[in-house]
Amino acid sequence: MIETVRMAEMSWPEFAERVKHDPVVFVPCGAFEQHGPHLPLSVDILLPTGVCEAVAQRTQGMVAPALNYGYKSMPKTGGGPHFPGTLNLDGATLSASVRDIVRELYRHEIRKICFIVGHYENQWFVTEGIDLAMRELGPSALRVMRLEYWDFFPPELTDKVFPGTHPGIMLEHAAIMETSCMMHLHPELVRVDLIPDNPPADFPPYDVWPAHKEWVPSSGALTSAKAATAEKGRLMMEHYARAIAEAAQGEFG
Amino acid sequence: MIETVRMAEMSWPEFAERVKHDPVVFVPCGAFEQHGPHLPLSVDILLPTGVCEAVAQRTQGMVAPALNYGYKSMPKTGGGPHFPGTLNLDGATLSASVRDIVRELYRHEIRKICFIVGHYENQWFVTEGIDLAMRELGPSALRVMRLEYWDFFPPELTDKVFPGTHPGIMLEHAAIMETSCMMHLHPELVRVDLIPDNPPADFPPYDVWPAHKEWVPSSGALTSAKAATAEKGRLMMEHYARAIAEAAQGEFG
Amino acid sequence: MIETVRMAEMSWPEFAERVKHDPVVFVPCGAFEQHGPHLPLSVDILLPTGVCEAVAQRTQGMVAPALNYGYKSMPKTGGGPHFPGTLNLDGATLSASVRDIVRELYRHEIRKICFIVGHYENQWFVTEGIDLAMRELGPSALRVMRLEYWDFFPPELTDKVFPGTHPGIMLEHAAIMETSCMMHLHPELVRVDLIPDNPPADFPPYDVWPAHKEWVPSSGALTSAKAATAEKGRLMMEHYARAIAEAAQGEFG
Amino acid sequence: MIETVRMAEMSWPEFAERVKHDPVVFVPCGAFEQHGPHLPLSVDILLPTGVCEAVAQRTQGMVAPALNYGYKSMPKTGGGPHFPGTLNLDGATLSASVRDIVRELYRHEIRKICFIVGHYENQWFVTEGIDLAMRELGPSALRVMRLEYWDFFPPELTDKVFPGTHPGIMLEHAAIMETSCMMHLHPELVRVDLIPDNPPADFPPYDVWPAHKEWVPSSGALTSAKAATAEKGRLMMEHYARAIAEAAQGEFG
Amino acid sequence: MIETVRMAEMSWPEFAERVKHDPVVFVPCGAFEQHGPHLPLSVDILLPTGVCEAVAQRTQGMVAPALNYGYKSMPKTGGGPHFPGTLNLDGATLSASVRDIVRELYRHEIRKICFIVGHYENQWFVTEGIDLAMRELGPSALRVMRLEYWDFFPPELTDKVFPGTHPGIMLEHAAIMETSCMMHLHPELVRVDLIPDNPPADFPPYDVWPAHKEWVPSSGALTSAKAATAEKGRLMMEHYARAIAEAAQGEFG
Amino acid sequence: MIETVRMAEMSWPEFAERVKHDPVVFVPCGAFEQHGPHLPLSVDILLPTGVCEAVAQRTQGMVAPALNYGYKSMPKTGGGPHFPGTLNLDGATLSASVRDIVRELYRHEIRKICFIVGHYENQWFVTEGIDLAMRELGPSALRVMRLEYWDFFPPELTDKVFPGTHPGIMLEHAAIMETSCMMHLHPELVRVDLIPDNPPADFPPYDVWPAHKEWVPSSGALTSAKAATAEKGRLMMEHYARAIAEAAQGEFG
Repeated sequence: MIETVRMAEMSWPEFAERVKHDPVVFVPCGAFEQHGPHLPLSVDILLPTGVCEAVAQRTQGMVAPALNYGYKSMPKTGGGPHFPGTLNLDGATLSASVRDIVRELYRHEIRKICFIVGHYENQWFVTEGIDLAMRELGPSALRVMRLEYWDFFPPELTDKVFPGTHPGIMLEHAAIMETSCMMHLHPELVRVDLIPDNPPADFPPYDVWPAHKEWVPSSGALTSAKAATAEKGRLMMEHYARAIAEAAQGEFG
Repeated sequence: MIETVRMAEMSWPEFAERVKHDPVVFVPCGAFEQHGPHLPLSVDILLPTGVCEAVAQRTQGMVAPALNYGYKSMPKTGGGPHFPGTLNLDGATLSASVRDIVRELYRHEIRKICFIVGHYENQWFVTEGIDLAMRELGPSALRVMRLEYWDFFPPELTDKVFPGTHPGIMLEHAAIMETSCMMHLHPELVRVDLIPDNPPADFPPYDVWPAHKEWVPSSGALTSAKAATAEKGRLMMEHYARAIAEAAQGEFG
Repeated sequence: MIETVRMAEMSWPEFAERVKHDPVVFVPCGAFEQHGPHLPLSVDILLPTGVCEAVAQRTQGMVAPALNYGYKSMPKTGGGPHFPGTLNLDGATLSASVRDIVRELYRHEIRKICFIVGHYENQWFVTEGIDLAMRELGPSALRVMRLEYWDFFPPELTDKVFPGTHPGIMLEHAAIMETSCMMHLHPELVRVDLIPDNPPADFPPYDVWPAHKEWVPSSGALTSAKAATAEKGRLMMEHYARAIAEAAQGEFG
Repeated sequence: MIETVRMAEMSWPEFAERVKHDPVVFVPCGAFEQHGPHLPLSVDILLPTGVCEAVAQRTQGMVAPALNYGYKSMPKTGGGPHFPGTLNLDGATLSASVRDIVRELYRHEIRKICFIVGHYENQWFVTEGIDLAMRELGPSALRVMRLEYWDFFPPELTDKVFPGTHPGIMLEHAAIMETSCMMHLHPELVRVDLIPDNPPADFPPYDVWPAHKEWVPSSGALTSAKAATAEKGRLMMEHYARAIAEAAQGEFG
Repeated sequence: MIETVRMAEMSWPEFAERVKHDPVVFVPCGAFEQHGPHLPLSVDILLPTGVCEAVAQRTQGMVAPALNYGYKSMPKTGGGPHFPGTLNLDGATLSASVRDIVRELYRHEIRKICFIVGHYENQWFVTEGIDLAMRELGPSALRVMRLEYWDFFPPELTDKVFPGTHPGIMLEHAAIMETSCMMHLHPELVRVDLIPDNPPADFPPYDVWPAHKEWVPSSGALTSAKAATAEKGRLMMEHYARAIAEAAQGEFG
Repeated sequence: MIETVRMAEMSWPEFAERVKHDPVVFVPCGAFEQHGPHLPLSVDILLPTGVCEAVAQRTQGMVAPALNYGYKSMPKTGGGPHFPGTLNLDGATLSASVRDIVRELYRHEIRKICFIVGHYENQWFVTEGIDLAMRELGPSALRVMRLEYWDFFPPELTDKVFPGTHPGIMLEHAAIMETSCMMHLHPELVRVDLIPDNPPADFPPYDVWPAHKEWVPSSGALTSAKAATAEKGRLMMEHYARAIAEAAQGEFG
């Protein structure tokens, strides 16, 4: 009996058996990027992987190995490239990786692919990779989704998760949402004692090169993460799993 | 006496003279994309060009020729590729164009460049082009900005511009903002009799390939543009010019 | 009633209506390059645009937005890269732009495309872009032309346009032909008082890197433009329009 | 106190602290490729990751996130592309990923990088990625190694590990070496009951396209893996760790 | 004593010895393209190689291995792609080859490089390759020339070489010039009995895709080659050698 | 009567005639790389060309022009990039060349192509070029082989060719095999008086960047070539011709 959703744990005959049932393959699109003093550099890999696995379990799907590196961290959404440990890919590299993966999954009879993005800056280059593959493959039965899991955040949880006046989802980098989800999924990787409590960053409505480091709070968290709890993480992850599974089933049948 | 801000109207000695005063070069980043039955396919070229010229006049800057083609129109922000006339570039083509322009302006002693994006989907590939050029040029005195002009929309104008319950700036494609600005800047290109009045599109929080045409209102406008007026356009354009000029001066001195 | 030939002035339904009649789409392939002290940097955009519009009017065609940037200016044909304001694209960038435009026009049911080149150095990279698109699209009903408008210069006009011993069309950069055409089409952009009268450049039969600036007349015009008149411009433009329309009709039916 | 060698478990301040001691960064270069009916598709990710971690522990080094996808599986070394689940990258995609990672680690003051390849077909494209980065970075203090861990197999273990007449290391795909190492490192992922016992593949000295599937044993293992044991895996892994640590210290000091 | 000019016949110490004298390296830029029924497919390799060797002998230079493949044959200059045996490279492939060769020669202390083009269609992609290398290498002592050898054809030979009313050098594909030069340099490869005598092709001033085969004489020669003689070939080759050597010495000292 | 196997000596009608018989086209994949003080820089071009011609003669095949430049020389197999005269291509350049040649031969109805590699470092980039072409062409009757000729070295010749304890085929760079084959095929290019007699190089099982020059014997030969003889060269070349012809016929029929 096959139980895992991780393709990485399947042998080729197990994978082949699964493919017969026309599963959705979920691909975690991560990045290696600073997430404050309290979270590991791999948050953007771990969270979409967690979402992918939870969704795959609900939908008889499979999870492909994560894209461990992502597009360039920008100050206003990820703190920017200057933080130690942030490793950025060129856009073309990320798009080519996505294109190759779509092409190869298709070659193995996969007809339903869902890229779950865990790093804001990835989305357009993942989009381009999907588009390049779709064009190359021509008209086919292949269908592809791409989503950023936090876009499924339910308005009804806003008050429960974000205390007081929340500065908005755009600043939720290494803040309440990501910290809570990590406390739920990977508590051993969260340094609770180091959770930052800086006020929200206040960015102007443009980007500059070279980046202004002083725009970004020195912690790397774009707003306070103090209100994070594992329970909030559980609530959110469960909601993401349910809502994304529903969306995938709606699209893929 | 030199009066124009358009580099396209300068001879090389005029350009050379201007460069001595260390001006900001503004580059309109457009696209060729459907904008409903009432607006021309070139809205995303004309509006950032208008913004660039107004800002350049306030800042002794110059305006480079527009990038007339842009990144792929997406259903949720531009209606998508299926509308007749929408001509999309690959991401790498747009990024390469931006990179080449930065490199060349730098070669001619320009040290202040500001890309003003008029097409939502462009922003990440313009970003990548800037980053590729900055890396290639190495440490230098060059500073570059990139902005989407609508991000300078002033909250204090919200009630004046958008009647009743506004569905949000994300649906402002071929809607009140763009229609008003076109009525102000290029009234001869607006078919007032054809301004659409469809209800706002209701998009799910993900993208799919192949695109679902039925997600997008058949007009191509993502929400009603009925409340558009030239006066609103004038208000917005004046504000954009003032606010962006201020931001540019703040950054570039 | 639809009257314009400019796609930039059409809405998507107007474009769609036009496409039903299987029109030729003309694409002006320009550049941003020095053209002496008397002409603006945009001559290579403006002239092929003018030709495209005139030809489109005679053939029920349409004109796409211009490619505003072109391949690298060479000393022997355009004065070279060192003149202030000359902004060059890499060959691959230009070819990719052309390829993308062909692909996209084809996607919208256009089957007749004509690239009209206004910058000598563009022609091979436009050629490559067309060829890459044709190969990608595979066997189809698509037909594409590419032409440099000055190759339609009629021998019978030689004596009328070029006084005395003319040094040849290869030196006609910012000289009699381009100056006359600009005086006809855009007189407000010609500084008649600054028309240069330098003797023709005398180039050896090879190119060198780094370029020798001293090969090129300091004005940037490769020979005297003194004999330019608006009337000559009118004569030439009319001939180009007529002859190119005839060629397009001959090829496209 | 910092104990992990995994960069994925470090926060940015922890990473920054580590970098001060000039550590070697080890990068596992994996692939997603069939490994017989008894091993998971991720063997080429898991084994070099295991080697990297063991070497890093001995050398105060750090381990970067793995490259989870690799170059195209070839019949004679990996069974080839036709086996279900084998997902191949284009060579340029892999080289670009490696180049980007070298560039980024260098940007963060890393001066010692060691790519440990776990998939035979990767080596030349990893090589190219390193070379492209070195050229781009110019003369610097950066030093890079690349190795395939099995090249450190000690001749003195040959008799102990490989029974009777061994067909050679080139056929060690999903065979004794990899199976033993997996039994040692990840026993829960080995289906001992399904270990294949087919005779060694007999390949001609050339490759062909399209590939001949009949060249490859139907199990996907290129020779029998029956003699695999966890103890052999332990012996080999310990030797690899020791020998590679020694080589790294010899090179990097 | 070193006597050969061919780098292909030198050992590395011989090459190193030569480099000390700061020689010009001449690179034949060929193509594999139909040249009528009487000439081999390698004419565009053999003739620039012959020119390179003759010039190198006069200038103490060296000749690098030829680029055996070139850019796409066009109907109006080479007969076009449809003739059996014509093998075309993409423009980017040719430019990359040239860029790599410049970069590598520079790495070996070569400071004077001259590309001698034997295939009309090559010139712009060779140009681009040189330009890409020059930019990458940055300011340096490197100087590069590029020339098409036939541009050194001396007007004073016109009457002697071309009988009667000559249709112009643009039609000299597989015609008098190339045939004569081949009769002089490689008489064993010329089928004198098959020299074509078709009238000159009459091309319109534009290109089309797909190509019109009927534009091109069925022989592949763009005009009659009947008047070719080995003596004419000798005259031309001697002149090319002398004139190009002089130009190279003028530029490189 | 057609006698040559060299496509370079055929006219287009001769090539067309040959194609009717569905021949194999053999493509020599060379490099320009140091081969000790006694052999020319072109050994890796000359030997696979010799093999291709001999095999083509036995199989009614044809030989395409050689790829004269190859992938980067590595210390452990070719001595490395630092030896004067070694000119390296980027991997992408070589792969693109191979891809273009496959595509073009296919366009001319060639359905059997065999790349014969004469430079160890080429093989993976030739592989990638073939794979890219196969994918682009889609399902077809095209079949392609790639081989390194020395992999056909017959065990039964080992004792005859290699005296005493041979250090292995990996060190056979500029050593007995290549020197003997050159003495047989191109004796005029071998400086017998300079044949090196250094002991075999002793490489560690990894590569490093920047390369350690001191790893490589100063001669550039990776082991002694003293035992080379023309007779050994004849034996090997005859065997290669026979065995590769047999393999090609086995594959292509």
